Order: sequence, then structure tokens, then C-alpha cells
Amino acid sequence: MRPSKRAADELRPVRLERGVSRHAEGSCLVRFGDTEVLCTASLDDKVPGWLRGSGKGWVTAEYGMLPRATTERMRREAAAGRQSGRTMEIQRLIGRSLRAVTDLVALGERQIVVDCDVINADGGTRTAAITGGWVALSDCITWMMRREMLATSPLRDHVAAVSCGVYAGTPVLDLDYLEDSEAETDANFVVTGSGKLVEVQASAEGAPFSEAELVAMLALARRGIDRLVDLQRMAIA
Amino acid sequence: MRPSKRAADELRPVRLERGVSRHAEGSCLVRFGDTEVLCTASLDDKVPGWLRGSGKGWVTAEYGMLPRATTERMRREAAAGRQSGRTMEIQRLIGRSLRAVTDLVALGERQIVVDCDVINADGGTRTAAITGGWVALSDCITWMMRREMLATSPLRDHVAAVSCGVYAGTPVLDLDYLEDSEAETDANFVVTGSGKLVEVQASAEGAPFSEAELVAMLALARRGIDRLVDLQRMAIA
Amino acid sequence: MRPSKRAADELRPVRLERGVSRHAEGSCLVRFGDTEVLCTASLDDKVPGWLRGSGKGWVTAEYGMLPRATTERMRREAAAGRQSGRTMEIQRLIGRSLRAVTDLVALGERQIVVDCDVINADGGTRTAAITGGWVALSDCITWMMRREMLATSPLRDHVAAVSCGVYAGTPVLDLDYLEDSEAETDANFVVTGSGKLVEVQASAEGAPFSEAELVAMLALARRGIDRLVDLQRMAIA
Amino acid sequence: MRPSKRAADELRPVRLERGVSRHAEGSCLVRFGDTEVLCTASLDDKVPGWLRGSGKGWVTAEYGMLPRATTERMRREAAAGRQSGRTMEIQRLIGRSLRAVTDLVALGERQIVVDCDVINADGGTRTAAITGGWVALSDCITWMMRREMLATSPLRDHVAAVSCGVYAGTPVLDLDYLEDSEAETDANFVVTGSGKLVEVQASAEGAPFSEAELVAMLALARRGIDRLVDLQRMAIA
Amino acid sequence: MRPSKRAADELRPVRLERGVSRHAEGSCLVRFGDTEVLCTASLDDKVPGWLRGSGKGWVTAEYGMLPRATTERMRREAAAGRQSGRTMEIQRLIGRSLRAVTDLVALGERQIVVDCDVINADGGTRTAAITGGWVALSDCITWMMRREMLATSPLRDHVAAVSCGVYAGTPVLDLDYLEDSEAETDANFVVTGSGKLVEVQASAEGAPFSEAELVAMLALARRGIDRLVDLQRMAIA
Amino acid sequence: MRPSKRAADELRPVRLERGVSRHAEGSCLVRFGDTEVLCTASLDDKVPGWLRGSGKGWVTAEYGMLPRATTERMRREAAAGRQSGRTMEIQRLIGRSLRAVTDLVALGERQIVVDCDVINADGGTRTAAITGGWVALSDCITWMMRREMLATSPLRDHVAAVSCGVYAGTPVLDLDYLEDSEAETDANFVVTGSGKLVEVQASAEGAPFSEAELVAMLALARRGIDRLVDLQRMAIA
Repeated sequence: MRPSKRAADELRPVRLERGVSRHAEGSCLVRFGDTEVLCTASLDDKVPGWLRGSGKGWVTAEYGMLPRATTERMRREAAAGRQSGRTMEIQRLIGRSLRAVTDLVALGERQIVVDCDVINADGGTRTAAITGGWVALSDCITWMMRREMLATSPLRDHVAAVSCGVYAGTPVLDLDYLEDSEAETDANFVVTGSGKLVEVQASAEGAPFSEAELVAMLALARRGIDRLVDLQRMAIA
Repeated sequence: MRPSKRAADELRPVRLERGVSRHAEGSCLVRFGDTEVLCTASLDDKVPGWLRGSGKGWVTAEYGMLPRATTERMRREAAAGRQSGRTMEIQRLIGRSLRAVTDLVALGERQIVVDCDVINADGGTRTAAITGGWVALSDCITWMMRREMLATSPLRDHVAAVSCGVYAGTPVLDLDYLEDSEAETDANFVVTGSGKLVEVQASAEGAPFSEAELVAMLALARRGIDRLVDLQRMAIA
Repeated sequence: MRPSKRAADELRPVRLERGVSRHAEGSCLVRFGDTEVLCTASLDDKVPGWLRGSGKGWVTAEYGMLPRATTERMRREAAAGRQSGRTMEIQRLIGRSLRAVTDLVALGERQIVVDCDVINADGGTRTAAITGGWVALSDCITWMMRREMLATSPLRDHVAAVSCGVYAGTPVLDLDYLEDSEAETDANFVVTGSGKLVEVQASAEGAPFSEAELVAMLALARRGIDRLVDLQRMAIA
Repeated sequence: MRPSKRAADELRPVRLERGVSRHAEGSCLVRFGDTEVLCTASLDDKVPGWLRGSGKGWVTAEYGMLPRATTERMRREAAAGRQSGRTMEIQRLIGRSLRAVTDLVALGERQIVVDCDVINADGGTRTAAITGGWVALSDCITWMMRREMLATSPLRDHVAAVSCGVYAGTPVLDLDYLEDSEAETDANFVVTGSGKLVEVQASAEGAPFSEAELVAMLALARRGIDRLVDLQRMAIA
Repeated sequence: MRPSKRAADELRPVRLERGVSRHAEGSCLVRFGDTEVLCTASLDDKVPGWLRGSGKGWVTAEYGMLPRATTERMRREAAAGRQSGRTMEIQRLIGRSLRAVTDLVALGERQIVVDCDVINADGGTRTAAITGGWVALSDCITWMMRREMLATSPLRDHVAAVSCGVYAGTPVLDLDYLEDSEAETDANFVVTGSGKLVEVQASAEGAPFSEAELVAMLALARRGIDRLVDLQRMAIA
Repeated sequence: MRPSKRAADELRPVRLERGVSRHAEGSCLVRFGDTEVLCTASLDDKVPGWLRGSGKGWVTAEYGMLPRATTERMRREAAAGRQSGRTMEIQRLIGRSLRAVTDLVALGERQIVVDCDVINADGGTRTAAITGGWVALSDCITWMMRREMLATSPLRDHVAAVSCGVYAGTPVLDLDYLEDSEAETDANFVVTGSGKLVEVQASAEGAPFSEAELVAMLALARRGIDRLVDLQRMAIA
């Protein structure tokens, strides 16, 4: 029995609320249980220097946590003067995941920045950010299409993410913080709407894991992500 | 006629929502119209170095804006590696305002950190942060009293804040962003529940202003702050 | 009786010495009693990025303290790798004050940087910096007019500043360090030569203050600033 | 046919050279083809703050590249004043991998820092660093055992790593830089001597990948890692 | 004929003015012609970490330039967030020079920090700083002896410094900025009151130099430093 | 007798190994006994901003130490977020030394960056870096000539460097770390192939030194550098 009392393949209640930002071209407040992440998509006329003149666009992400999103207050990164390695790793993952389903040539020489700020953290903030970030990105692209900045959408597919773990010897879906702290293995899966893999990151926290466990976690993740993609579809409908 | 169509002495709709943070000892989501600031109060066992062994406590504040709280996306301060002068100025003001109504000796050798993070900005974020920050601080102190960490409350009074300006020659209360950009003078007033002044900051944006305008703005501010203190009372009731 | 034995409305001896910098286009060593600030005005061909092509100029200020300007040596900000919040707040105030009396369009697309470096600190360094900074700025503009870079002066008025406080229940003018440490309230007033207000910043250090005290401090400040503007007139004559 | 002309399951020539550092307690210069990484293990009496008094030790890693390890010179991170997100991500991976086979309680309250500095880069620097880092760590532990600082080794197993990719539709082992730039998918596998998984990181660079491809890459990786563990055994014999 | 019209072995007018800082334990405003450096010596109870408990003291120096000490305004190092290599090199040289004549054991476990801030720069700021810094240090030690913190002085000798150069083929003493920019070789000599060498730094700016030129510059420097030591003696008398 | 048992005028075994970097236009692994420095020369199309459009080129150097090049592990400068004063001082010295023998106009508007990274440190790393850096620079220029980017070589002469010291009262050549820690005086000499001086830096570590000692050290340095220039000639032959 997992601490959350959920079945091994059961997601937390997930909610995708659009339009929460007054200014952003696209936005989504995503909740996976008590984890709450505000995602905004901002259109920028300028691409990074190495893309200038290429005709190609870019999608990137930035991640942050409010200082008291966590059980103990964490030092504000702006005050510390640097982003942690964890923050950098997560925002790189979100950016790669969103680019994997975006046709950057079709986007044209523009950048979309997806900011993912954690309001409350209870495990799975990076996978929530990818899932909600896709909705914000999708809304930003709809905004551009309405203004005839794009004739067809450069979004080729959905992308969503979920964590899995091996808890007390059993693979389980969508760990909350308590489960995550006690899991032997922690994995994040990023999968497209058509079921192709974008990112697989599995990490032994306690003991090393087996190939069978990896495959079992992937199967759970697929089931969860099918459901998340359905929720994305309903949200943007 | 001001752009917001409000009367000269009319506040925007104000809402103080408590308990929005899952982890903080006190929290308040404060809205002044479209301005939205999340305030959390975090109890810390340790005081700053210069107070260690003094038996005296400390209340401090930190301020931040989500990158897309504003019309144009602003660079994330954590990524830039430093907080702007504006951020530092605002967080120092919030901290001084909250300390003005706190008996630091009665608090004992502990620190309360009030984080004020702007979710949506439409003018008056610093005054909203002080008004909502007081509610978060008050809830943190109630939390401590329930746990018998404090016998009596070190909070000596309410404190709330509001901005005023001179718009098209007329003093007006509680500027939104549009009004603020066009005002000749911009002032922030921080006042206690008993009507004493804590901070007065008036600044000529276009032309210098007169003493009569300062006095008129102060009168408006008092009226607005009376209403804000009533709302604080109802919120914590 | 105040510690300095001065009457409540009595300034410290003030001295404005021009031409102290070998290289700057304008400079002024300003002394308010034992407080000593070196102000230099530097002409720069380039304006900040957001003004480029606007035809409009800019006046900005930077503030610093020599490490041993104070009773205890303070860490050098260059060694610490960041300017403190206090430094940023002060330099922003100086810049706003000087811009309030400068016609930035008449200045043309150029920047004047006023550096205010505290050699000795005994209270009131920011108000001394504004008062002396105006003299340096005025000399820089005279320098430009002599070289026919400007046909008429973009300086519309004098601007000067002084601090006031409530000491032992009585409003007093121009606090030195000792008085400042013991004052209940500390206020800075920035006023033009024609008596209009540019900045009012009043802050409760101990107990909150009343409107009557604010008005009394403002009256004292006006008297002091009249005298400071006379001294500026004599200095540049 | 892959650009390197190697068979799909063929490693580059691998060489593990011990004792290359004059001062370090353990060291290994590891070469995977033209990729060359110097790994040193340094014993430190002090553990990170959050472990002090716990009786438990720590193994951590730092990663860097000489500026001209790459085709184009890269800016020196020490001169830039910050480590890149890529650097942080890699050094966190190396640290986790080495800790996965170390009994931190048996190590006692000490820290071993494994520095991995890339002398020449031709793809696969992070997997080379893990493979060579284990040898440096092992030598450091032998050094400690010889001095009777440890009675038994806290190293529970070997750990080694290799990259795989999908190149022109075919899964291949141990990508060099040229292959890596053209691969559709890039994956890193960290596996213990007994064949258990420690880290799996697979990332779609171009098109998303399938579960079959993930499983095929894992099979290749296992074969490569078996060989790398053999080489580690011979190196420390 | 040198630009300054001085004879090859002629110093600029040198002035050492003591007691210019209101707060410092020792201070000296040193002028070499138009070069003007404010030196303060600050006593600190704490030594650097690596000396704690050793019973030994430390003398260190910090160097800075006011932004408009130079012909063109230089960026403020505090605003840039880092000290330049030139600044670091100079302050290390000043510190070593002063330590060379101080008995650190006799000083006891305390630190003296000598801050050297350039008010106006016209060449030779580092040598002026050493010469004036010694006077500030000497006054700080006198201050300590008066308070019976030291029974005998830990200052073993005078130390002073001067620059020399090869200008138009001729070795000359004490270069001003104009001469320095045109010199082929630039050298700084730090010598004790008894004529022993502490630092010799000679650098080819244009063409390499000969041993004969080095020896000739050293002879000039000795003559200049004899005079500077006399001036130090008169200053502290 | 010196600790290394070498004669007073005896260099450590010196080895200059070219072509050790896979990517750099020129490279040299230089060894002075146990000191080992990897020098790479990288050609860059862009010159620093202040040279743009001047038609003149630039040669600069950067210096670093691997964290465990030293007896005790040193903190990685990239992790610390700043280069130390020692690092900056050394890289400025290397750059000046190499520029002293390069015709920057003949080089054309291009930059060559010489990176010197210390693999193992046993005293004399900066002088080894200059000696080996010259070989890397020379190879870079040969590389450019082969590609007809330069018709004639802008290298006007060799440059090499060595340290000397006064050990137990006797001037000795080429100090290793142990000797350096115990020497009373430490000096670095940079000399061209034709015997002209480029840099002389002598510093009293314990007691001040005499002119005779300086001259004796210089004589030793010349002998050593003659030998180093011979080795450079053989290396590039």
C-alpha cells in the first residue's frame, strides 16, 4: 500500500486551468494533487544569437520555485545570485521536451519562452511543468494564429510527462513528495500524444534497479500520459 | 475622469485570501484589482548574525515578480544573477513597514521571513504586498501562539498601505498601471490601524508637486487604508 | 537640546567646493559638517539602450562609500561583488532628483553620470550628494555650453535636499549620525529652487509618526533648502 | 555504416591509466578513442554541512572542460563566473553514479571529491568520466585502506557508463562527436558490475523514439559496459 | 626632454597629509603631482581564517579608483560586480610591500587593512599608495601603542615606492600618465628605509629592455625613495 | 645544498611536447620536473572591442589549475564564481610576455588565445606556461602560414621564463615547490631569445633583498633561459 493510498497505476487529481495570467500569450495553472505550477508562454521577437538569420525559431523554458513552495523555506535564487544545478537541469528538460513536438522552422524566427513557477510543491513539479507548459505553449500558438502570424500550427503533437518510482518493491505511478523521498528508484517519462518517447530519465536513489522495473515503470507512465493527454485535449477544446 | 472610471477616492476591489500556501506558517493571496501578490510568512529559528544572543527577533521581507507578471516579460532575476535596485528598494520597504508594528523583543530570538511574489502586476504591487504581508504575518503569529511558542502576540497594530497620485491635476487613490504611467506624482503611504504614519514616499515623476497635493494625497490614503484595515480585520476574523 | 547643540532649525556648516576633480566635466566636494561627499559629473556620448534613437538624453547617478568613511570599516562593495540595497536605493533617489530639474529633450541624446562618493560619513550623505551633485551637474552643463554643445541650458531649476527627524519629540533639521541613530523618525526632502517638492521620504524608525510631525519637518526642510540653494547660487556664481 | 566505421556494438579503444596525478589519493586518465578525461579523487576530512555529525560520508563529483578540449574554443567557466547548466547536470550525474555503489556509512564521516576534467573531447565525456572516476575512487579507497583509515572497502560494486544512439535508424554503441551530432536519439546508461541499472537517460534529439529502440540501446550498452568493467578490473589489478 | 619638463631624476612635488579621515585609526592623503590617493588604516580584531589561533597578525591592502579619477570615466567595480585583474594585482603588491616591514608576530593576532582609494589619477597610483599607505599604517600603530595595545612597534622599517621608465631611450624617475603612456619600459620599485629591495617589477611595454637600463632605473629609484622616506619621516614627526 | 640536490644553476629536466591537443591550432605540454602545464593556442577571428577596425591583432592568455594539481585540493574557480587575484596576475603576465615578441600589426586583426592549464603543480607554473605557451603560439602561427593566412611570421623572437630565488642565502635557479616555500626571495624573469629583458618580478618573501642578489639571480636566469630557448628551438625544428 502506498502512503497516498492510491492504486499503483493511479494519477493524483490533475487540473489544467488556462488563462490565469493577465499578460501572457498563453498560460496554464497545472495541479497534480497538491503540486501547483504556473506556466506562462511569452512570445519574443528575438531568437538567441546563434539562430539569428537562420529563419528558424526556438522554444525554451525557465523554472523556478517560490521560496515557500516547499516544506522548509528555500533560499530565493535571485538573492543567492545563482540558479541551482537542479533548477538548470529541470528547465533544460522542459525546453527539450517542448521542442521535441514543435516544428522550429514552421515557427519562424521567433522565440517562445515558457516560464514554469512552482507555487506549491508536493513531488513531480518537473513533469507537471511539462504537461502544463504544453498547454501554455499551445495557447500562445493559437494566439499567434488568430493574429495571422502563423498560417498553420508548428505544434506537431501533444507532449506530457509523469514520474514513476519503485516503492517498497512495486512500480507505482505519479509519486507525491512523501513517496518520492522513500522510493528506491525515481524515473521521469516524457511521451508524445502518439505514444513516442521524448525523454526517459531513471535514477537509482537507493539500490540499483533492473530492466524489468524500468519496463514496468514505462508501462505505467504510458497509461498515465494517455490520461494527461486527454486532459490537455479537453483543456484546450 | 480617471482611466479606470473610479472616483478619486475609490479603491479597486480588494480581496485577501488566507491559507493559500500548503506549507507556510501564514499566507495570504492579496488582490487589488488585477494586481495579485502571494505573501507567505515563514518562521525561522535563526536570526541574522548581528542579532544572535540579543534575545531580540526580526521580521524581514523578500519581493519578487514572476517573469510574466508584467505586460512585457521581464528577465528572471535568478537567471540574471542579481536582484534589481527596484526589487531591493521594495523589499526593504515591506520589511520596515511590518517591523514598525511588531514588538521584536516580545517575538523572541526568531525570524519571520515574509515572501511577496507578484503573480500579476497592474500597479501598486508594493502596497498590496504590505497589506497582504501583514495578514500572512498575523497568521504566522497565530500559528506560533497555538503551539505555545508565544504567550501574547508581538503584533502591536495593523499596518496597511496604498498608493496615491496626481492624475491630470487631481489627487487620486490607488493607481492602476495605466494611471501610474500617466501620473505626474506617485506616492506610497504606509499607515497603522490607529492612523499613525509608518512610511511616506512621494516622488515627482513629471513636474514637481506642491505641499497641498501631498496633504491631499495623504487624506485620500488615510481613507483607503481605513478600508484596507477593515478588510484585514474581516480576513483574520 | 539636541546632541549637536544646534537649534532645531539650524543646518550644519555647509561648504560646496568646485573643480576638485582633475578630469571630470563638473565636480563638487560637498561638506555638511563632518559629512564629505565628492560629486563628479561625467559626460557620455551614449545613452542607455532604451533611449537610443529617441533624441532624448539621460541623467543618472551612482553612489558609493569609501570603506572607512564610517565608524566601523565596511566591506568594499567591489570586493563583495554586489552593491547593497541601501546603495541602490540612494543612487536611484539622487538620479530621480537631478532628472526632475533637467529637460532631457533639451539635453539631447547624451548621458550625464553623476558619481557621488562618500569620503567621510556623519549622517545625511544622500542629501549632501543631491545638493553637491546639482553643482557638479550644473558645471558639466556650463562646460558643454562653452563648447557650443548646447545653446541653452537644459537645467530648469536648482534642486537641493536635507534630512529632518523627530528627536526626543521635537522636529529638527539636518541630523548628524548621532542624532540620526537616536531619532524616532527620519525623513529626507528634495525641493527645487522655486520651492516645489521633488521627493518626500519619511520613515518611522522607532514609533510611527503623526501628520503634524510630517508637516513640521517639511517646514524645517524648506527653510534649510532655501539656504542650500543660496549656497549653490554663490558657489556657481 | 556509421561514420567511425565501427560495428554497431563496437566500443572505441578504451584506456585507463592510473596514477597520473602527482598529488591525488587516486587518479585515472581515461580515454575512449580521442576523448580524454583526467579523473582525480581527493579525500577531504569535512563532509557537507547537512551531513555533519551524522557519521555518514559523501562522494561528490565536479566536471570541467579545458577551454580548447573542443573543436571551437569555449569560454572558460571560471572567467565567465558561472558553471553552465550542462556542466552542473553532468557533475550531478557522475556524483549520483559513484554514490550508487558506495556504502556511505561504511565510508565514515569523510568526503571524496572526484574531479573530472576533459583534456580532449570527442563525444561521451560524461560516460568516460564515470568509468574513469570509478577507478580513481577505487584507488583513493585503497590508499585509505593501506593507511588503516578503513578496515573494509565501502565500494560495493563496479560502476561504468556508455552512450548509445540511434544513428540512421540503427541503434549503435559509444557515439563519437560526429555520430552524436547526427544521431536522432542520444542515451546514456550507467550500470553496475553485476548488471543492475543506476541511471538511464535517453533523449530525443530529432524525432521521438520507440520503446523498442530504448530496449535495443540498453542491450548494446550492457555489452559495452561488461567490457568496460573488465577493463576496470584489469586496471586496478 | 621629458613631457613634464622635469630632470630625469626629479620627483613630482610630493605631499603626505595625515589625519584626513574622521574615523580611521591612521590615514594619509598622498599626492605625487596630480595623482592623489587616500590611504586609511583600519584595525580589525579578526585575522583571516588561516591565521586564527596562530598568535600572528596580518596586514592587507585594498585598492580602488573613483570612477572619474581617470581621463575617461571607468565603470564602477561595485556595479560591474567584480574587481579587475589590475586592481587585484595592485592591492596584492601594496599588501606584500607593507608586510615586508612589519613583524607580524609582534603585531599579535589582529589585522590592519589599508584601503587605498584613488581620488585623481595621473600615473604612479600604486607607488603613491605604498608610500602613503605606510604613513597610515604607522599612524594606526601609534594609535595602538597609545592605547597600550602594543608595547613596542612591530614596524621594522620604512617602505616607499616609486616608478621609473625608459622614456625616449633615457631612464627617468616618477612617470606621470603622459610619460607612462609613451614609455618603452615601466618599472616599479619598492625599497625599505635602509635601502633593501622589497619588490622589483619591470615590464617591457614596447621593446624589451637591457640589464643596463634595469640597473639605471634602480639607481634612480633609490634616489627618489631616499627622498620619499625623508618626507615620511617629516610627516610622522 | 638545496632540497632538490641540484646545483645552484641547474634547471629541472624540461620537456616540451607538441601536438597534444586534438583540436587546437598549436599546443604544447610543458614539464619542468614535476610541474606539468598544458598550453593551447586558439585562433579567433575576433579581436577585443577596443581593437576592432584597427587592423591590429592581439595575443592574450588565460591560466587555470586543475583542482588537484596541488598538494591540497583547491576550490574550482568555476564553482567559486570568480578567478583569484593570483590567477589574474599570472595570466596577465603570460599575455604581456607573449605580446612582447609578437608584431601585432603583422598578425592582422585576429586574436590568438593561449590557454595554460596546470595539470600538476610543483613550483614555477607561470614560467613553465610562458615557455610552453611560446611553443603553442609558434605552432599556431605556423598553422596560419601553411594556410596562407600570413605571408611572414609576426613572431619576432623567442621568449622563455624561469624563476630564481635566494635559498639559505644563495641565489638558485628554477625553484621547485619545496624550495619556493622556504626561499627568502622569489623572482621570475622573462627574457627573449636575443637576451633582452621582457619582465623582471622580484619579491621579498621573508627578508628584503639586495641589489647584488637581484643581479646574481638575473645572471642565473639568463643561463637557464638560454637553455630553455635551445629546447624551444629543438622542439619546433
